[in-house]
Amino acid sequence: MNDKIRIGVLGASGYTGADLVRLALLHPRMEITTLTANTHAGKSMAEVFPHFSFVDLPRLTTIEDADWGSVDAVFCGLPHGTTQEITRSVLSKHPKVRFIDMSADFRLRNPETYKAWYGSDHAAMDLQVEAVYGLTEHYRTAIRDARLVACPGCYPTATLLALLPLASSGRIDVSDIVIDAKSGVSGAGRGLKQNLLFTEAGEGLSPYSVGKHRHAPEIEQEISKASGQDVIVNFTPHLIPMSRGELCTIYVRLAGGSSADDIRAELMDAYREESFVHVAPAGILPQTQNVRGSNYCQIGVVPDRIPGRAIVISVIDNLVKGSAGQAVQNFNLMFDIEETTGLMQQALFP
Amino acid sequence: MNDKIRIGVLGASGYTGADLVRLALLHPRMEITTLTANTHAGKSMAEVFPHFSFVDLPRLTTIEDADWGSVDAVFCGLPHGTTQEITRSVLSKHPKVRFIDMSADFRLRNPETYKAWYGSDHAAMDLQVEAVYGLTEHYRTAIRDARLVACPGCYPTATLLALLPLASSGRIDVSDIVIDAKSGVSGAGRGLKQNLLFTEAGEGLSPYSVGKHRHAPEIEQEISKASGQDVIVNFTPHLIPMSRGELCTIYVRLAGGSSADDIRAELMDAYREESFVHVAPAGILPQTQNVRGSNYCQIGVVPDRIPGRAIVISVIDNLVKGSAGQAVQNFNLMFDIEETTGLMQQALFP
Amino acid sequence: MNDKIRIGVLGASGYTGADLVRLALLHPRMEITTLTANTHAGKSMAEVFPHFSFVDLPRLTTIEDADWGSVDAVFCGLPHGTTQEITRSVLSKHPKVRFIDMSADFRLRNPETYKAWYGSDHAAMDLQVEAVYGLTEHYRTAIRDARLVACPGCYPTATLLALLPLASSGRIDVSDIVIDAKSGVSGAGRGLKQNLLFTEAGEGLSPYSVGKHRHAPEIEQEISKASGQDVIVNFTPHLIPMSRGELCTIYVRLAGGSSADDIRAELMDAYREESFVHVAPAGILPQTQNVRGSNYCQIGVVPDRIPGRAIVISVIDNLVKGSAGQAVQNFNLMFDIEETTGLMQQALFP
Amino acid sequence: MNDKIRIGVLGASGYTGADLVRLALLHPRMEITTLTANTHAGKSMAEVFPHFSFVDLPRLTTIEDADWGSVDAVFCGLPHGTTQEITRSVLSKHPKVRFIDMSADFRLRNPETYKAWYGSDHAAMDLQVEAVYGLTEHYRTAIRDARLVACPGCYPTATLLALLPLASSGRIDVSDIVIDAKSGVSGAGRGLKQNLLFTEAGEGLSPYSVGKHRHAPEIEQEISKASGQDVIVNFTPHLIPMSRGELCTIYVRLAGGSSADDIRAELMDAYREESFVHVAPAGILPQTQNVRGSNYCQIGVVPDRIPGRAIVISVIDNLVKGSAGQAVQNFNLMFDIEETTGLMQQALFP
Repeated sequence: MNDKIRIGVLGASGYTGADLVRLALLHPRMEITTLTANTHAGKSMAEVFPHFSFVDLPRLTTIEDADWGSVDAVFCGLPHGTTQEITRSVLSKHPKVRFIDMSADFRLRNPETYKAWYGSDHAAMDLQVEAVYGLTEHYRTAIRDARLVACPGCYPTATLLALLPLASSGRIDVSDIVIDAKSGVSGAGRGLKQNLLFTEAGEGLSPYSVGKHRHAPEIEQEISKASGQDVIVNFTPHLIPMSRGELCTIYVRLAGGSSADDIRAELMDAYREESFVHVAPAGILPQTQNVRGSNYCQIGVVPDRIPGRAIVISVIDNLVKGSAGQAVQNFNLMFDIEETTGLMQQALFP
Repeated sequence: MNDKIRIGVLGASGYTGADLVRLALLHPRMEITTLTANTHAGKSMAEVFPHFSFVDLPRLTTIEDADWGSVDAVFCGLPHGTTQEITRSVLSKHPKVRFIDMSADFRLRNPETYKAWYGSDHAAMDLQVEAVYGLTEHYRTAIRDARLVACPGCYPTATLLALLPLASSGRIDVSDIVIDAKSGVSGAGRGLKQNLLFTEAGEGLSPYSVGKHRHAPEIEQEISKASGQDVIVNFTPHLIPMSRGELCTIYVRLAGGSSADDIRAELMDAYREESFVHVAPAGILPQTQNVRGSNYCQIGVVPDRIPGRAIVISVIDNLVKGSAGQAVQNFNLMFDIEETTGLMQQALFP
Repeated sequence: MNDKIRIGVLGASGYTGADLVRLALLHPRMEITTLTANTHAGKSMAEVFPHFSFVDLPRLTTIEDADWGSVDAVFCGLPHGTTQEITRSVLSKHPKVRFIDMSADFRLRNPETYKAWYGSDHAAMDLQVEAVYGLTEHYRTAIRDARLVACPGCYPTATLLALLPLASSGRIDVSDIVIDAKSGVSGAGRGLKQNLLFTEAGEGLSPYSVGKHRHAPEIEQEISKASGQDVIVNFTPHLIPMSRGELCTIYVRLAGGSSADDIRAELMDAYREESFVHVAPAGILPQTQNVRGSNYCQIGVVPDRIPGRAIVISVIDNLVKGSAGQAVQNFNLMFDIEETTGLMQQALFP
Repeated sequence: MNDKIRIGVLGASGYTGADLVRLALLHPRMEITTLTANTHAGKSMAEVFPHFSFVDLPRLTTIEDADWGSVDAVFCGLPHGTTQEITRSVLSKHPKVRFIDMSADFRLRNPETYKAWYGSDHAAMDLQVEAVYGLTEHYRTAIRDARLVACPGCYPTATLLALLPLASSGRIDVSDIVIDAKSGVSGAGRGLKQNLLFTEAGEGLSPYSVGKHRHAPEIEQEISKASGQDVIVNFTPHLIPMSRGELCTIYVRLAGGSSADDIRAELMDAYREESFVHVAPAGILPQTQNVRGSNYCQIGVVPDRIPGRAIVISVIDNLVKGSAGQAVQNFNLMFDIEETTGLMQQALFP
């Protein structure tokens, strides 16, 4: 008896798609049946990603040529904007397919916000309403039954895992949140841009999209929901000369008489039963090296020398817990598989 | 029923030991019961390697305090020279234990050669005689029954996988072999040396130990054996600003009328049934990115513009196929487990 | 006629000392006559820093053996704590010598603060009182006549150049300053520490000394002085996988009805005549690549999406404007030489 | 009186052009009057290279719009193939202009070789005949009077400086030369190619263009000329995860009873009076860190364990001695300026 669940990956020639393939190959219940990459259709994965030269994988195909009837679950790693019509098309023709979207297209609840940040009307509003936000630890019940899961962006994942329990419990003043975010270069994708060249990004450090990054409204949406207030956050990303990894240093004002120890305890309580979210004891600082290639999120809390403030530090691998790994975690939930299946690799260090 | 094989790791605070632990945690038949690190005895692994903060592992102990009666297999990641007495002691007291040595202590057959390169007499000559050289693909039968396996060094692994089939078939002139070897910094271990600092090794490239590297006699021993001639090779290592990965560019003179295509075909024949050694088709060049974090070796052959010569390129991850991964592969053989068990992770890329 | 000024460098085997030597070799008025490095005394600089193999330099000597009577100026790149007695000794015996200290020993005005952060009483309080804080652009007049200049730390340099004009003009609320600081690994010096190994610091990002870094009191001292208020700042440093460069992302609350444009204009006014401090026009973000190897500081201002807040970004090369370059700039002032002499190298990019 | 020599830079938006500008800004006799970059015409250099934000430079123009009558010397950093017509046009209209070409267009003497390696006929054969090969130390006399100097490629520079004295003296067997070459990523230019992305080139090592690199015929031309034999060399380049720097490990067979010490002595003799080429004493290995950002070439010789062979190691900064620095050195010769002028910066280390 074959108990494999057949999966397809949209956008398999990008880093997110490739990391999904890497994880799927180790997953005991997944069988990769379809890989799409329109500009590379007809090629083997090994031609596009030579590190997949040693395994058998389906040849790349166009989205149009793929047989969606032969898959049980679709992972989508396409750039935002391209996903909406495809999702509608696949879901309408194949209503039993479960769709796990790693793009940005179904994350924002409010169509006005979507339009304001992405520059165009949303083309599948009905599905946007249906989509469940795929931050596993906070939307577990809804994800289980969802047909369409919108996995969070990498920065929102790191940030919200650190802040949601504090925002909902009133431990912090949500009107005064500064998120200094740092990401490895893979977060910018595989597109050819001058600032992503080794010679340009190496041995240097650059802030980018300050005040304009599209992950800001996503963070605000969820913190607003958790706190019951309309929240604007400071979100300032920086490009770091490393390939993988993401660290958010979050500066918060404490509320309700809380101390740094209190919010650490609150976070520990929130994640005590979680496999992938770990709160470090006092004195231990998270670092991206601890999670490289793994699905873990590590959170630390440090008292600020300024009275009434604290520093919350959160690290993930942007391509794993920040994308493909969290997608697999959601897949496990949706198909009633033990949630950690295929995700127990520890970090590759050094 | 517990079908786990209990393992101990000697030298768990080094990179080789840590990578063994990483692989063991994913191995369905291994149970880690003992971890030693004399200078860190009493600490948790998380204190020594914070990327292991998220899993349960035995506390570090001294070699003396470890209960070797409670392990079935020992992996040794100690620096060379320290292993000989320990190995003797463990094996004499616990004759059923299987010992998989990742150090350099039992690789050289000739005691004179050992003394010449390591500066002292060998302290366990009887065991050296017994030890099987752990280059899995070439010593499989002997490894299966061995009590003591001496896993090859990282450079010898990459080099010998490329050269042994050519040396034994007479396709190359073994008196004229130039091995230009390049390794990531983890190959030098975790010791505190100035040239290993980020500021010193980063953004730069250094040859080192030219004409003096201890992996040379190991390579010579095996090529001599395969070819039936006493061989001296040129072996010139370089330190590359990356953490993992190793590439050997090997310049050979063809013999017996062979062409580059002939030796590629010879290598393809030799490794056709192998899971971890892959010979690239003509036109494809191996690169370390293809094998980072994985147990694969990729080999490519390129015709030289100088008539009668060819270039053979071999890449591995120095800590996996070059050390801990090959040790696990040998373990699988020794305990009659499917050889690829726990080793099927593809490269972590990017 | 020889119009050279004879200089000595204390601690020439560290990165700060080496960068001073690099700059001095191009300075038309400097002649290097003395280089000390107690643990390397007797060696040539080329043995300690092989990149100095191609120039003639004095042999390294101990501090005790150096002839301080034959130097006109001393640059000190020793670790903090070691400088106090040496400075007193040199200055008392050779009252005409000018002393430019790149260590931390004479930066803090308040002996209690010194003791609290450095763990011991100051051994040369009289000199501490005399020392001028060497932030060139803000202490120019006093530096000109100073016998002892205490050059600022690298983080204080980047931070104070960005904040002092705003603090003194009342444009920002100095009680709410968050400084998220990022530095290349050279900022930690050449000492052998595990976290500075290529394998540990590479491909990863780590916060460190959060809430405990000794540059915090130095920043607070100067902002308090400029604003007339007792200030505590949040200062959170991170280690970045690059050798050189430092970027401070500073989150400020605007005061007195200021906008981001106002504070940018304020900074432009403050530095309009300066050679080395440049304020970027709106829309341009500083990055460390722009200043690598140079004495420049580049500052940018970005409006925060949170009303009433702004983001100020400041970059320097930690070893140049953050240490040896600023020391040379002060030297030029002290010896009545055109201030930019020997410092006009643009960044080495890529 | 203005004793400045007015220079123009063709292709100022590439790395070679930018490094020429960096050096020119420190050169006491150069005045930059013209900078071309066809695709960026109209922009400031700061827009194309933000590290030039702090200096005044002419605005970028097209080649057509530049006033070549107002320059005394032209440095050309265009890609090969584009230079031929431009050179002819400038030189025919402005016969007093001296042309220093950093492209590949005038390096090969033989039109057949040019066509074979570059795929098209040469469009300015008359000029190719006139051009002097700009390897300064070996063509000094001819360069002094040349109107058109073809500066060598980076790899040929490093290789020929190491081999020419040995080839011409008969110390090595020129029919058996293996050049294992390693370069930082800037050697590949600023073009947008996937393999040059930080995520692709970082933490990895790749051979490329094996047996096909266009620097091979250039090396062969000069070694053939020096030795009086038709020479084919093995030349195998590798891409190293660093921005700058180049190291060639050259494996040679000794001739005429020479030893490694003999050829080291031969090289020391050859370069004893040279400012920029330094032969390391026995036991010292060159490394790219020693020359980063500088115009030096460092050469070391190591005995091979294989009798009758030796290893010669040569390092340069590919953009300086391998391109812009050597071009400035030639400029100095051509304009009768002290040869080291503007080139005495030591390496930027760390």
